[in-house]
Amino acid sequence: MKKVDSSFDIWSPWMLRALQLAALGDGCTSPNPLVGAVVLDNAGQLVGEGFHACAGKPHAEAIALQQAGKKARGGTLVVTLEPCCHQGKTPPCTESILKSGISRVVVAMEDPDPRVSGSGISRLRDGGVHVLVGLFENQAAHQNRTFIFRVRNGRPWGTLKWAMSLDGRIALPNGVSRWISSQEARSWVHSLRSICDAVIVGGGTVRSDNPLLTSRGLSSPEPLRVVLTRSLNLPSNAQLWNTSRAKTVIAYGSDASRDTLLQLPAAPELLPLKSADPLELLNALSGKGCNRVLWECGPGLATSAIQKGCVQELAVVVAPKVLGGNSSMNPLDSLGFTSMKEVLHTSNDSVKQLGQDWLFRNILLDQEV
Amino acid sequence: MKKVDSSFDIWSPWMLRALQLAALGDGCTSPNPLVGAVVLDNAGQLVGEGFHACAGKPHAEAIALQQAGKKARGGTLVVTLEPCCHQGKTPPCTESILKSGISRVVVAMEDPDPRVSGSGISRLRDGGVHVLVGLFENQAAHQNRTFIFRVRNGRPWGTLKWAMSLDGRIALPNGVSRWISSQEARSWVHSLRSICDAVIVGGGTVRSDNPLLTSRGLSSPEPLRVVLTRSLNLPSNAQLWNTSRAKTVIAYGSDASRDTLLQLPAAPELLPLKSADPLELLNALSGKGCNRVLWECGPGLATSAIQKGCVQELAVVVAPKVLGGNSSMNPLDSLGFTSMKEVLHTSNDSVKQLGQDWLFRNILLDQEV
Repeated sequence: MKKVDSSFDIWSPWMLRALQLAALGDGCTSPNPLVGAVVLDNAGQLVGEGFHACAGKPHAEAIALQQAGKKARGGTLVVTLEPCCHQGKTPPCTESILKSGISRVVVAMEDPDPRVSGSGISRLRDGGVHVLVGLFENQAAHQNRTFIFRVRNGRPWGTLKWAMSLDGRIALPNGVSRWISSQEARSWVHSLRSICDAVIVGGGTVRSDNPLLTSRGLSSPEPLRVVLTRSLNLPSNAQLWNTSRAKTVIAYGSDASRDTLLQLPAAPELLPLKSADPLELLNALSGKGCNRVLWECGPGLATSAIQKGCVQELAVVVAPKVLGGNSSMNPLDSLGFTSMKEVLHTSNDSVKQLGQDWLFRNILLDQEV
Repeated sequence: MKKVDSSFDIWSPWMLRALQLAALGDGCTSPNPLVGAVVLDNAGQLVGEGFHACAGKPHAEAIALQQAGKKARGGTLVVTLEPCCHQGKTPPCTESILKSGISRVVVAMEDPDPRVSGSGISRLRDGGVHVLVGLFENQAAHQNRTFIFRVRNGRPWGTLKWAMSLDGRIALPNGVSRWISSQEARSWVHSLRSICDAVIVGGGTVRSDNPLLTSRGLSSPEPLRVVLTRSLNLPSNAQLWNTSRAKTVIAYGSDASRDTLLQLPAAPELLPLKSADPLELLNALSGKGCNRVLWECGPGLATSAIQKGCVQELAVVVAPKVLGGNSSMNPLDSLGFTSMKEVLHTSNDSVKQLGQDWLFRNILLDQEV
């Protein structure tokens, strides 16, 4: 915990506003972070605000400064992430800030992007701007956890979702799983998809459930729908092969036969991998600009994704139902544990009601984040 | 929902007090119900209160009236259950009430016991007492749900408890299950046992876990510990065979061989059944005065108990851990369902945190209650 300057206090309401603004871009900014900014004039009056809405579009600081115009002179910029100092798709924010005549910048946290990483702050200080860093740092880091994770680890943050009965079953013994969860829980899954950059399933889920995997229009563009398949045993007809509303990627390993490849549907993009490995897939998806992926797969792939460190968070819907079962239809396969000392621990601070169901959102602990 | 007399309003605080008093006997009154009573003098001042503490000990009304003495004359008795009108281990309460000179009795609900069932109320009215019935009836019925269930169905109310990980596992593939749940959750199980009349396990749980199954002294006497075994394949040493702190019953079917029976430990009581069937066991335990039993058994017996209608309520502890597993170690076996229309539904209104775990207490719906 960094020591926070007591002079921060007066900026707290504005940083909270900047965090709220940043959240408006949730799900739309990848590979960029969420950023919100507020400009106050030299009397402390609000004269501009903005958020980063989409990669390629103006940064939060640029929008807020443009709104403020000349009123920014001698004023304060409050921003949720360190301003960039490099030329990307848009000009460096540090230069706009210096030009604006802003005399103070309050920053929640340094940008972990190696192209910034403190250089933005240095550039401002060198230009004579008073810079305060660390106000609501934890909140800002939590808000941008998927971006930060991707920058640090080179792969997107993974959320694994399943819906189960009170006795821990994800389907009946005959495979029937529609519907364990309530309409409200299923709608919530649509909203979860809308803030993810990609939704991943295995071939088995395509074969058995023929899912649509969209946010039902909540986000535009829809998240990328990814099928990770080792066998390439895919049905010729599937909702995922219709790419008019959302893109589909079929990712497969190098042992796929040419004959099988030729039989694949035409519309989806093909993504050849060395092996059909979750980690290799995520590295490839990082290259496609994904900060966050949602695993909506069956037990086999889900277990493999956890084992490879591709899952940072669980979203578990528990329905007030009892399904029973014989020897299958559980959310996960064996993780090879033989002692309670080995089991994975999760946070337990987030549970809420979704219709008649309960939703647990638990961070997997003891993982690199 | 019965229409409630508006004249009830002034008695509401006293009925709530009577319900609180009744709760003090929780776990100790079987086969009797929980009952609490308050006596007010003719000016509405509290002059006596009592609760039924133990079968064979005085009834709540008798205690409250004795406290009130002559001040009861012209006063009001507020009681959570219809006063009895039959001679049991103690004299009929209706006669004590009539003798006391009480002029008004406010009753939460009729006693479903066929020996009472409205006759207590009639006897009071015939004796010139003004009787109001139905104040906080739902709350009173909920408080006495185990007694009411036993009276109506001839067998005790069953609660099935299990602790599982977030991925629905009750043990690792090698059988290790200590401990999935937190210390706080395990302490809560001790308190749950303390309000149950019997705790039931199968032979497998004795063999694999060698449990103690007591409330750790929270209740005295401790609940009856029952082993329901078809095979009579029991270890020669087990904590349950030491009956110095709590009684143990071994219940077995008629196909048990005489040789095996002779090898059973000496201290536990033997309870021969026609078959080692959950329902037959509960009928026998009803005869032993049990209103409420706790099933702490493995998946096989738990599933059978549900199928036979021996489980009315689930108590499920969910620990924020991920265990994984291959093809076993789930709370329940197959219930034979092939469609979502067949699955069991539960209430979903009670979830609370126990240390780092979550506790669901869900009533099984669509069961006779």
